[in-house]
Amino acid sequence: MTNKRVLTGITTSGTPHLGNYVGAIRPAVAASLDADVDAYLFLADYHALIKCQDPEQVAQSSLEIAATWLASGLNPERAHFYRQSDIPEVTELSWILTCNAAKGLMNRAHAYKAAVQANNEGGEDPDFGITMGLFSYPVLMAADILIFNAHDVPVGRDQIQHVEMARDIAQRFNHNFSEVFTLPQAVVGEHVAVLQGLDGRKMSKSYGNTIPLFGTPKQLQKSINKIKTNLLEPGEPKNPDDATVFQIWAAFASDSERERMRGDFLAGIGWGEAKKQLFELVNVELAEPRERYMELMASPARVEEVLQAGAERLRPQSKALLERVRDAVGLRRYA
Amino acid sequence: MTNKRVLTGITTSGTPHLGNYVGAIRPAVAASLDADVDAYLFLADYHALIKCQDPEQVAQSSLEIAATWLASGLNPERAHFYRQSDIPEVTELSWILTCNAAKGLMNRAHAYKAAVQANNEGGEDPDFGITMGLFSYPVLMAADILIFNAHDVPVGRDQIQHVEMARDIAQRFNHNFSEVFTLPQAVVGEHVAVLQGLDGRKMSKSYGNTIPLFGTPKQLQKSINKIKTNLLEPGEPKNPDDATVFQIWAAFASDSERERMRGDFLAGIGWGEAKKQLFELVNVELAEPRERYMELMASPARVEEVLQAGAERLRPQSKALLERVRDAVGLRRYA
Repeated sequence: MTNKRVLTGITTSGTPHLGNYVGAIRPAVAASLDADVDAYLFLADYHALIKCQDPEQVAQSSLEIAATWLASGLNPERAHFYRQSDIPEVTELSWILTCNAAKGLMNRAHAYKAAVQANNEGGEDPDFGITMGLFSYPVLMAADILIFNAHDVPVGRDQIQHVEMARDIAQRFNHNFSEVFTLPQAVVGEHVAVLQGLDGRKMSKSYGNTIPLFGTPKQLQKSINKIKTNLLEPGEPKNPDDATVFQIWAAFASDSERERMRGDFLAGIGWGEAKKQLFELVNVELAEPRERYMELMASPARVEEVLQAGAERLRPQSKALLERVRDAVGLRRYA
Repeated sequence: MTNKRVLTGITTSGTPHLGNYVGAIRPAVAASLDADVDAYLFLADYHALIKCQDPEQVAQSSLEIAATWLASGLNPERAHFYRQSDIPEVTELSWILTCNAAKGLMNRAHAYKAAVQANNEGGEDPDFGITMGLFSYPVLMAADILIFNAHDVPVGRDQIQHVEMARDIAQRFNHNFSEVFTLPQAVVGEHVAVLQGLDGRKMSKSYGNTIPLFGTPKQLQKSINKIKTNLLEPGEPKNPDDATVFQIWAAFASDSERERMRGDFLAGIGWGEAKKQLFELVNVELAEPRERYMELMASPARVEEVLQAGAERLRPQSKALLERVRDAVGLRRYA
């Protein structure tokens, strides 16, 4: 029996924070260990170009994210870990799919429509500041998915539509030419852990409320000390369910540790003490990964080696798929 | 001093006719012999996918067009003769340019606007039946031009806009990142020979008035016999300047032969005799190319070899350019 191919793209922009770790990295790394799954995890650096025009940041962020995933326990022997731009078949497939994707489909993409709406509200031309990258990236995403004929694509709700577009494009191709593509499906985690940030809202770079993932222990402690609390004094009972400190605690604690802390909240543990314990808990989990991260960041060539090996292992697959696609549309060598 | 790089794309759809030969193939082959020019002539098979969804036709037409150019005297040792889809750097560059091309620019492309207008007039949705291929092909064309940093792009008037878009995209990239691209310019031939078809209109597949280029002599004769004439009898003076027979004659004759025939027209040469002489003139010029064409069509592997050699010779150039582009936008190996 064929293993299920599960594909996850990681846009290489920004520096990973604790929320990325809990919501995306840790679960994806755990899922990649499932024996019935072939995990495809890739650094979506072509996608990063849509958002980021700063070359130094594109390069730095790509390295940081690669090092973060490896440091967080991703086993590149087991999962396919690769950089999108190391698989040139992706852009070739993307062009062929471009010829088979209706423009009307792209007109309906959420991200594009949101940008148009913002322009309309600002009294601008509807397409003001919109690049062809933003407009056509669902086609590139379809190529990412279809080049390895992935079965499942775990996504957040905002990305379901793009996987459905990939499915639509694949279906159209299979119908017009030949049955080359597996129809992918979006898999939405029902229990995706959304970590709260310093101010209690979802931890997100755009809110400026993040806790850095692999800062020094001192930086981690300082961040945790900044988590917003109420004014209750030590000894006064506290509600764990509206406390960010407890929410983050729960994301790192075992079941019994979680219940113990719940009891301590009700019994009136002081904020200072709770934060101290939270720092220790998180720091214990991150200590080893952080050390690996620092090592990897100090030897980028080692990270590069891992990615090159990943691409090399995969390219026979992407080349074979592209060969089938080329044959199907008539791009053939003469013989 | 660097030679001028002159780039011409040949869309691989349809079978070449006498009008293509006179208007495009013969002058481009002649220009490729200029010692001050590096000619880049490529089979635009990625572009063919936009128009044609029939894989057999895509494949057959590509071979026919490759064989036609070689048979017509293109020297692949001297000119760069290659197939677009053998240069994977083209689609990679195309994606990077996609991220740097404004959608508003594509909205203004003639071909797209014409399709929208036809939809509006037909009461359809503006984007009905329009693929992303049609919409975004000016970006692919920019990649075709910029991957080899062409100076000049000879085009018909309808294509000037696309070269200007390539120039615009290149300028934007140079400004935002670094001076990687030569700004290409459209070169519009002032004296492009437009051959008349059987009915006196421009010879064009869409009018169904073409004379096949490499049919048998018998087919050529039959076609020429079908050229529309007026009802003047032998002995009656004829106006060469409103006669398709003379127009085609002039496209193949030497100056002195042209003047001789002009005299014969005024002196009342019969249509049958004029057509007989026209057949002989054209047939003499086509005889050798036709033979080479038949030979090439009988050994597609030889054509393939020529194209592979062409791509192999060029890829160090396309790879080096893409490397510069990748570095400029931040897609770098870690080291």
